[in-house]
Amino acid sequence: MLATQYEGNKTFTVFEKEIEAPAAGEVRIKVAYVGVCGTDVHIYHGMMDKRVNIPETIGHEMSGVIDALGDGVTGYEVGDKVVVRPLDDRLAQPSDKGFNHVCEKLKFIGIDSPGAMQEYWNVPAFTLHKLKAETDLKLAALIEPLSVATHDVRMSGLKAGETAVVLGGGPIGLLVAMVAKETGADVIVSEVNETRIAKAKELGLDAVNPIKVDLIDYVRNKTENRLADVVFEVAGVQPALDTMTEVAGIRGRIVMVAIHGEKKPVDLFKFFWKELKLIGARVYEKEDYEKSIALITANEIPFEKMITDVQPLSNIQQVFGNIDSNPDGMKVLMDCQQ
Amino acid sequence: MLATQYEGNKTFTVFEKEIEAPAAGEVRIKVAYVGVCGTDVHIYHGMMDKRVNIPETIGHEMSGVIDALGDGVTGYEVGDKVVVRPLDDRLAQPSDKGFNHVCEKLKFIGIDSPGAMQEYWNVPAFTLHKLKAETDLKLAALIEPLSVATHDVRMSGLKAGETAVVLGGGPIGLLVAMVAKETGADVIVSEVNETRIAKAKELGLDAVNPIKVDLIDYVRNKTENRLADVVFEVAGVQPALDTMTEVAGIRGRIVMVAIHGEKKPVDLFKFFWKELKLIGARVYEKEDYEKSIALITANEIPFEKMITDVQPLSNIQQVFGNIDSNPDGMKVLMDCQQ
Repeated sequence: MLATQYEGNKTFTVFEKEIEAPAAGEVRIKVAYVGVCGTDVHIYHGMMDKRVNIPETIGHEMSGVIDALGDGVTGYEVGDKVVVRPLDDRLAQPSDKGFNHVCEKLKFIGIDSPGAMQEYWNVPAFTLHKLKAETDLKLAALIEPLSVATHDVRMSGLKAGETAVVLGGGPIGLLVAMVAKETGADVIVSEVNETRIAKAKELGLDAVNPIKVDLIDYVRNKTENRLADVVFEVAGVQPALDTMTEVAGIRGRIVMVAIHGEKKPVDLFKFFWKELKLIGARVYEKEDYEKSIALITANEIPFEKMITDVQPLSNIQQVFGNIDSNPDGMKVLMDCQQ
Repeated sequence: MLATQYEGNKTFTVFEKEIEAPAAGEVRIKVAYVGVCGTDVHIYHGMMDKRVNIPETIGHEMSGVIDALGDGVTGYEVGDKVVVRPLDDRLAQPSDKGFNHVCEKLKFIGIDSPGAMQEYWNVPAFTLHKLKAETDLKLAALIEPLSVATHDVRMSGLKAGETAVVLGGGPIGLLVAMVAKETGADVIVSEVNETRIAKAKELGLDAVNPIKVDLIDYVRNKTENRLADVVFEVAGVQPALDTMTEVAGIRGRIVMVAIHGEKKPVDLFKFFWKELKLIGARVYEKEDYEKSIALITANEIPFEKMITDVQPLSNIQQVFGNIDSNPDGMKVLMDCQQ
């Protein structure tokens, strides 16, 4: 079988290895497609070398077909199309209060243990979600990032008729915007990259460049002064933090999707004054995957437009290099099928 | 009648003036007691000179007895004991979404219009809450600040059996702690002033000095590693902001009670990582007053210990001067009854 490994120093190796039998409680998946996540790019850049057990096979946005069942696995059959919810919560404790998806000792499969960027992948059966036979496996590789979006939107409590502002129109931002729109909300994407603005519009979204347009005025006009009911901070930059508390209306909810590596100045007075809420949201829960699978299966949202490139797995080194040199791209998939 | 006015420059005047008839829709209250709020002290310090219409009678933490009814006032009688919920929301708009207590054009009575530090006070009848005849009017002067606390606790969603950490043991912090404890939660107050720590203990609260004790370890030990379910940030200083995201456990809720005049560094990563919530909470709603009135009426919590001084209204200048020179004091009331 073909496999890849991150070796450190912006380097991947591609090599042949023996196919392994799945352990008890595991299944072997013949991987179809793996998407490249921002986290994978961080790993490639060496930002997570302390956490990743180098050399390591990475990747967690995937789709595939069950190829073999380990002892004791029930409810699945060889040939089932599946996706993996890559959260290993087997070390969860009572102090995690049942929020096992963010438990203190969570292991993220594909970062803390081997991932999907290989031809065959053995994973615990409890991580699986079964797909319908007719599901498009390319679209299905979007289920993991889409579940970040369905989780964010669920955590926001967004309702039909409300207005949501998405700060940042990268892959997660646009998925959040699509899910928010599907909820029946009015959605405005704020993004400075014109190619991404064009992509957002191609997806049927309202998108503005806050460098060219006064976003606060724009939202105020669109909402009869109500401003945003929900703000998703997906940009991860200080101007977005400054904007989020401005653009949120009274009792607005701000979902913190972006990862801010350092303490950042926040206008806490506005939280007090307008009774804003800040809601931290990380990964996803089972129901978020189920929602995403339903959306991908229904195929009524142009998710396929999010996939801007598909490359063979053997091109992994070039794929990561290209992502660095092309900030306009959205989701790149690698085809792991030989 | 005796009246007082803030004249700017840390100066109050005390003078006699004519008693005025209440306008239509208003009542005249014979004021019993007025508490001095931190906001009143800010006004005294000149911090709010741009907002206050100098010279102005200030004060909004009060109790009293209805003395006269203006035209069209129903549901009240002369002799009724009352407190005022000092929020004038008559300029509320649809864009406030019904959250009139924090509406964009809210007028706070006693800051934006004349307040209670006088012998008689005319106020709109819609601001009134009626008290039972047997209510202690000294304790009743605590209903306004207590309603800040009942609002904060309600906004937090605190439940019996949860653990709440209150950062800051001043008057509002201790009221929050008392209400949180009454909810059935385990409550830990973090405060650096030893006199306030002693006061907290006198009130039956668990209180620690985070300069002497590692608060995170303390809470971890008390909760079997769960850490705080709810944190109230009532201190308004950077160390409390640094602590709030540390001491909150997974999915912990942090209530922002303190007023931070400038943008401050916040550990947004922890909001993401532990799926924390930050909940801005300002003033109170009708139901918070009703809860506070019920608590004061039941008189099962030692609220009287919060009142550390009672002075005649005529001593107003000395009262504000003393507050500055005595950081250990809790609530000072002025007796407006001649």
